Amino acid sequence: MKPKVLVAFKAREEDKMIIENYLSGLAEVVYLHEISQDELDKVLYDVEIILTGSGRNLTEDILSKTPNLKFIQTLSAGVNAIPFHLLNDKVVVASNAGGNARAVAEYALALILSALKKIPLRDRFMRKGIWLRRMPHELISNKIIGIIGFGHIGKELAKKLKALGAKVYGINRSGRTDLEIDCIGDPNSLDYVLSMSDIVVITLPLTKHTKGLFNMNKFKLMKSNVIIVNVGRGEVIDQKDLFEFLKKNKEAIAALDVWWTYPRELDKETFQDYPFHELENVIMSPHVAGFSPDVRKEVFEHALINIKKFLLGEEIRNVVNKLDYI
Amino acid sequence: MKPKVLVAFKAREEDKMIIENYLSGLAEVVYLHEISQDELDKVLYDVEIILTGSGRNLTEDILSKTPNLKFIQTLSAGVNAIPFHLLNDKVVVASNAGGNARAVAEYALALILSALKKIPLRDRFMRKGIWLRRMPHELISNKIIGIIGFGHIGKELAKKLKALGAKVYGINRSGRTDLEIDCIGDPNSLDYVLSMSDIVVITLPLTKHTKGLFNMNKFKLMKSNVIIVNVGRGEVIDQKDLFEFLKKNKEAIAALDVWWTYPRELDKETFQDYPFHELENVIMSPHVAGFSPDVRKEVFEHALINIKKFLLGEEIRNVVNKLDYI
Repeated sequence: MKPKVLVAFKAREEDKMIIENYLSGLAEVVYLHEISQDELDKVLYDVEIILTGSGRNLTEDILSKTPNLKFIQTLSAGVNAIPFHLLNDKVVVASNAGGNARAVAEYALALILSALKKIPLRDRFMRKGIWLRRMPHELISNKIIGIIGFGHIGKELAKKLKALGAKVYGINRSGRTDLEIDCIGDPNSLDYVLSMSDIVVITLPLTKHTKGLFNMNKFKLMKSNVIIVNVGRGEVIDQKDLFEFLKKNKEAIAALDVWWTYPRELDKETFQDYPFHELENVIMSPHVAGFSPDVRKEVFEHALINIKKFLLGEEIRNVVNKLDYI
Repeated sequence: MKPKVLVAFKAREEDKMIIENYLSGLAEVVYLHEISQDELDKVLYDVEIILTGSGRNLTEDILSKTPNLKFIQTLSAGVNAIPFHLLNDKVVVASNAGGNARAVAEYALALILSALKKIPLRDRFMRKGIWLRRMPHELISNKIIGIIGFGHIGKELAKKLKALGAKVYGINRSGRTDLEIDCIGDPNSLDYVLSMSDIVVITLPLTKHTKGLFNMNKFKLMKSNVIIVNVGRGEVIDQKDLFEFLKKNKEAIAALDVWWTYPRELDKETFQDYPFHELENVIMSPHVAGFSPDVRKEVFEHALINIKKFLLGEEIRNVVNKLDYI
């Protein structure tokens, strides 16, 4: 009997084609949303691998019915939504870091330039007839951009920024990179990079080590006119401290694609605990950086290559250290 | 007696230093705003060269009192504000095209990415609690960008776009460029380039040939979801036709830094003849692309090198064909 792979999200026809393309002959693929309630328990019992979106829908019920589960692969780059406390020790989890890096990096660049040129602000005022003409715009070619969490997204973004003439400083766990940038350091250099950067781009995953990392102590190290871009996860920033920092430092700008509170239902009006929407020096983006039809196929392929490796007993990439999350 | 150069705008101290730096020993520099009313006629009589901002303040009075005028140099890239009908045939006019090209190109890139990722739109809605999450964002790396008026700005922009993986098509008068792009043509190829482009960037000067060039006939050639960026001059687009095109084609976006109607006084609420400010598919920018403190010095130097060449009898650049404007 071939190993069973559970696809735990609503797959489109084109998604299924990619999935079959990678796994046919190696595994039996079952689609959670197509299993009848009667068969569910029986089908789940044999599942060894789960392909999930972010892991958010992996309920206690599902996990309790999959005693043979060995491997969880996400489509998302972040795995913080996975209920790690419900997993057996033997279950390996792999993120899909890198899968949507091209899309996130390009979106981050758009946020950087929007903030640097103050385009949403000028647009909002001009719609009221007010021309913000005396407010200058600065060139990115003179700027230092600190990328905190210098991984796949950071590298893609750094290539673009270097091509535009900017200086790039990076922080990651190893303090190393194969890309030629202006400065790379490990977390011991974080405060130095924050103090030097004109623009701080956060691409960090949400782990127990990064949660609330950016608090007032960190903001105080930054330049008073810093631009903070967050395309990682909202909770790596302390919400209250960022709000107070922005309220006090009118020259600083935050361009945020990730948040603390999300809509519970689509189209339901959703605000944060603090009224960021009333601040002029915020650019609000509804967590879309990674979602581009232009990378959907490569996101799937990136995840499926890993599942195929697992099935063939080869070394898989992006294995998550579960202790970072528990 | 050394030739007299009239500086016809309010020069800052740092501007004066650059001016003296280039012209000392070659010319006598007089500052219009520092000449007393009594001396004005006498001083103007000897003026051979005028350095002006855009030429807007060259009144009939000033021009009638400068019978020895030989050369007008602007600081602005465009010269459409010069009252050409008041000039003697012998007066040579040079634009400052290229002086602020780095700033305009970077701002144009910011407008392109803002529009492609729909950042001002998402920001406006999220401030009302509405998360536009299902609206995808496309990658620029798959896009054809047509740059109409492929000169200094176009070349600077093309380098950035190529580095981001986009395809660049250009149109200029000669149909030639020394930069390697994907397609370059003369005005006979305009319609073809408009029909092929995902994004149309207009960097044209306003002349009698370009006025109203972009009318409904041109918009009809474009893709229904085209992004139109204008950093040239507002009047190269027909205002009514653009408004109607945008109102009808909700998938199209216009990101405009140049307009038809400008504020007569600073801070006076100013709208256009058509209510662009009510359209969701417009990004409104108050004509700031060229104004960056980071290029102010090079804008001045670019103009002063030309004046110095004129004084030394060397060949000057950017000489305007006055027949394009009369």
